[in-house]
Amino acid sequence: MAFLLGAVTSVVSGFLGMRIATFANARTTLEARRGIGAAFATAFRSGAVMGFLLSSLGLLVLYVAIKLFGLYYHDDWEGLYESITGYGLGGSSMALFGRVGGGIYTKAADVGADLVGKVERNIPEDDPRNPAVIADNVGDNVGDIAGMGSDLFGSYAESTCAALFVASISSFGADHDFAAVCYPLLISSAGLVVCLVTTLFATDFFKVKTVRGVAPALKLQLIISTALMTVAALVVTFAALPAKFTMFDFGEQKQVKNWHVFFCVAIGLWAGLAIGFTTEYFTSNAYSPVRDVADSCRTGAATNVIFGLALGYKSVIVPLLAIALSIYVSFTLASIYGIAIAALGMLSTVATGLAIDAYGPISDNAGGIAEMAGMSRRIRQRTDALDAAGNTTAAIGKGFAIGSAALVSLALFGAFVSRAGVTVINVLSPKVFAGMLAGGMLPYWFSAMTMKSVGSAALKMVEEVRRQFSTIPGLMEGRATPDYASCVRISTDASLREMMPPGALVLLAPLVVGTFFGVHTLAGLLAGALVSGVQVAISASNSGGAWDNAKKYIEAGASEHAKSLGPKGSEAHMAAVIGDTIGDPLKDTSGPSLNILIKLMAVESLVFAPFFAAHGGLIVN
Amino acid sequence: MAFLLGAVTSVVSGFLGMRIATFANARTTLEARRGIGAAFATAFRSGAVMGFLLSSLGLLVLYVAIKLFGLYYHDDWEGLYESITGYGLGGSSMALFGRVGGGIYTKAADVGADLVGKVERNIPEDDPRNPAVIADNVGDNVGDIAGMGSDLFGSYAESTCAALFVASISSFGADHDFAAVCYPLLISSAGLVVCLVTTLFATDFFKVKTVRGVAPALKLQLIISTALMTVAALVVTFAALPAKFTMFDFGEQKQVKNWHVFFCVAIGLWAGLAIGFTTEYFTSNAYSPVRDVADSCRTGAATNVIFGLALGYKSVIVPLLAIALSIYVSFTLASIYGIAIAALGMLSTVATGLAIDAYGPISDNAGGIAEMAGMSRRIRQRTDALDAAGNTTAAIGKGFAIGSAALVSLALFGAFVSRAGVTVINVLSPKVFAGMLAGGMLPYWFSAMTMKSVGSAALKMVEEVRRQFSTIPGLMEGRATPDYASCVRISTDASLREMMPPGALVLLAPLVVGTFFGVHTLAGLLAGALVSGVQVAISASNSGGAWDNAKKYIEAGASEHAKSLGPKGSEAHMAAVIGDTIGDPLKDTSGPSLNILIKLMAVESLVFAPFFAAHGGLIVN
Repeated sequence: MAFLLGAVTSVVSGFLGMRIATFANARTTLEARRGIGAAFATAFRSGAVMGFLLSSLGLLVLYVAIKLFGLYYHDDWEGLYESITGYGLGGSSMALFGRVGGGIYTKAADVGADLVGKVERNIPEDDPRNPAVIADNVGDNVGDIAGMGSDLFGSYAESTCAALFVASISSFGADHDFAAVCYPLLISSAGLVVCLVTTLFATDFFKVKTVRGVAPALKLQLIISTALMTVAALVVTFAALPAKFTMFDFGEQKQVKNWHVFFCVAIGLWAGLAIGFTTEYFTSNAYSPVRDVADSCRTGAATNVIFGLALGYKSVIVPLLAIALSIYVSFTLASIYGIAIAALGMLSTVATGLAIDAYGPISDNAGGIAEMAGMSRRIRQRTDALDAAGNTTAAIGKGFAIGSAALVSLALFGAFVSRAGVTVINVLSPKVFAGMLAGGMLPYWFSAMTMKSVGSAALKMVEEVRRQFSTIPGLMEGRATPDYASCVRISTDASLREMMPPGALVLLAPLVVGTFFGVHTLAGLLAGALVSGVQVAISASNSGGAWDNAKKYIEAGASEHAKSLGPKGSEAHMAAVIGDTIGDPLKDTSGPSLNILIKLMAVESLVFAPFFAAHGGLIVN
Repeated sequence: MAFLLGAVTSVVSGFLGMRIATFANARTTLEARRGIGAAFATAFRSGAVMGFLLSSLGLLVLYVAIKLFGLYYHDDWEGLYESITGYGLGGSSMALFGRVGGGIYTKAADVGADLVGKVERNIPEDDPRNPAVIADNVGDNVGDIAGMGSDLFGSYAESTCAALFVASISSFGADHDFAAVCYPLLISSAGLVVCLVTTLFATDFFKVKTVRGVAPALKLQLIISTALMTVAALVVTFAALPAKFTMFDFGEQKQVKNWHVFFCVAIGLWAGLAIGFTTEYFTSNAYSPVRDVADSCRTGAATNVIFGLALGYKSVIVPLLAIALSIYVSFTLASIYGIAIAALGMLSTVATGLAIDAYGPISDNAGGIAEMAGMSRRIRQRTDALDAAGNTTAAIGKGFAIGSAALVSLALFGAFVSRAGVTVINVLSPKVFAGMLAGGMLPYWFSAMTMKSVGSAALKMVEEVRRQFSTIPGLMEGRATPDYASCVRISTDASLREMMPPGALVLLAPLVVGTFFGVHTLAGLLAGALVSGVQVAISASNSGGAWDNAKKYIEAGASEHAKSLGPKGSEAHMAAVIGDTIGDPLKDTSGPSLNILIKLMAVESLVFAPFFAAHGGLIVN
């Protein structure tokens, strides 16, 4: 029941998000005629509206569900909030389609369109003669908006449900303190208000006037929302929570004070900011890392790839330390509840996060529409400038998504272990260590699958585009209209079919391991997958973002250094294009899909925990 | 004292190995005039001699050390074998220089020589006019022979020492059963005899006559040595071990039977074979994975890189499951001792492993010498054919090295935890989990450093080679001799200087974490680094091997498919060259260096365990 609600809410939000995005694409293009400031405000405001819509819808449905389910469960709060956990599972199952399927969809269309259009036929990007151009633009909305939205919605729903359930079996539940139990919802509501105020700073108080102003304006958003939210969290915490209470802690009850919980919110929030800033540093072409990658294109594509991979590897250091610190602090202060609350803290500014994330594909597509509508070069330049900042913000969004996914899956992991009645998972036991090693391998297996999926789907697209170019007379001359619909259909079909193997891996791995090897091995598996998956996801999305922006840096030629590498078509630029193409599936498919891997495996284990505890471990127990 | 012995033995072995390799290079070139069979036999026999020399020297020195130290310690076996553990630390410290420094040396020279010689000046590989050609050839010996040798020697010394120490605090020590304590040495000695017999199969019983026979002959070596070793281990086990005894198991004594220990040896041995075969499947151009990668070059360098990365990711599945299974079985049967013995089982065929591994650089350099000496094209073709098989065997050798490194570091990890007086490392504790996440990040940080080191060292080489070409008159025409020595000096200096930052990371991380955050966080750090490092190392070395052989596949043009992609200089071939260049630092520097990261951090923690237990955890305890 709650599962259905979660799934439906996720689908409805995704659907609404895509409608808004489609509308925003067109509006932004039109506003670009008036100037960069107007275009920026439109793109950003649309993203913000979408962020608010998703967050408030999720919050509202959850609140209504608690009230409705309460009519049935009356005073049995444990039963009530246990049944509500289905909401999280529903939300995150849909994220499998949104993130993995959407990721395959968008990159199949993108790579297919580029390989035939840009490389073979030598026509510009987003040219209306390219049959895959509509699929490519739709894909940006599917992957980066519906996919990211469903991923963050899943994290949000899962961490809220985990916190609610833990609270119900702690003193909040025993005392029937409804305000305290609803603390996670209150934090998210406060976050909505904070983000609303923050958005006004970008669109109304300080207006962006030049291209240079775009990136700082987006960065300011992050800082303002984090600072305001810290204050808001302090107020909510002291208003809603009693001064002292107990929290469930692996079979025991732990003494917690209300300011402990405030610290959990705050550490999650500020860790998110640290992740955002690090991501910006490593993926924006305003700083030396991306410029070094661009410079390495001088000696060819090979050095570009090596430098980009090394950049991605290096970019995991700060985010991982930030996540490790948040886990240490929140786990120590309030056990599983603390981790769930830290995740919510990181997600409390989700509306701003979604706004700056959605901003990327909106400006990207605005450029596409300008190109297709045959609008002037100046308008295209404006949308391109907006888009370059969009690449960085998209990477920041991905950083938030993976950071919160790590916290959420750890909270779910804790809930799973508790529900299975286990209090210690000892690394020094054969079952656990073997599970950890196998779990560490899963992100690699999964990534190999998603990368292959993009490859096969793109190949089908290439064939279709080639077929249309060779069979439709007058297509290259612009006298005939290509069959856009058939390309959209190929992307849709391919993404649904190609997501089956990775989806099956995610869904079957915990079931097989739990059933045959028992709870301890499964716990090891989840821990290993979490530890190794976070690194792969962050490095993949930052390498990809850096390659993309290194290419844009050379193309824009805004500095002496950039000019020495360009112009478009130079050897260095060709090397940069190769890096960008490699980064595409890494940053938009295989990297972000790992969020789903680690979260869905954990929530699935949580759901089946009683079964594994009672009947699991057929081979090893 | 034992530390010094270990370090000196490692250095002496590396030195002898390089002398033999240098001699073998020249001999193989000469034999290549007589035919492929003779050249193969020479290259392989030299590799085998080196393997035997290293293994037997390590064994002999260790045995003498035990006897000598015994004169001082008399009946205090615990003290005796505790002091012997320094031998392992000595061996593995030198491996830091051999593997990391050697890896930087070889790739700086290789990339530097190729970028100026092949790309800018358009002269063939190994052309004597290239000033870096000697550094490049020396580098093959430094990285692949001294580096690999010191790495495997370190694994061998560490697992033996760990097994000896654990045995001394178990019933073998209590009963003063010298034959039983020396079981690890007996297994290695049996391995030497088995490898000797196996080598005769390749060089005397079944002679290799054609190019096609090279790869099967090397594969047969693995199978024969594994099968014979299984029988030998059975004999040694029942001869040396009492039927029943007890083994130290995290503060308790565990009941173990002698056939349990046999299973530990066998599972390590066969897991090694599984790793070897999987590696062969994914890196040899006789199978579809490498052919698919080669085929992907049709659509350019970007698809080649994506397919190669996906191949590397996919290639970790079987090795990781094999390692996880060995750990599960050996850990369950005989605790830490079992894991150390499984590592020794995998390493018992180390002489064969080193032989087939050293075979690669020996044939590579034989080709280089043939080129430089201006010998006929037919001879160069023969050495090239030997070299293609050498790429696969080198990847197999790396698979063995990382597999045994994983087992060894787990054994050392167990010993560290025991020595620190800890019996449970609970994943569900903030300290451990935060440590695991941070540990999982270390392989990425370390790889980013080593990749950057290769880049900077190669850049220096490029400048020197360019300088010589532009300042030495008549160099391009072959009338003047380049200054080979200055290039060798640059590689040597750069490798020593550039290995400082990654070396410091490895040495400081356990010290800092242990001192400030205590034993539990450090244990988490080690576990996280192990779980994530193994995956990175295997995928990096297999991606690199696959790219290299995909290029060789196109160049050789031995099938219709390969011909359709070639010839040398075609678009597909250029794309393959880019993949190969990217793979070089991955497979020869950053990937294999991770073995050192995980082993050295574990052995260092073991050495400082009493200090961390008594004074560690200044910030968190």
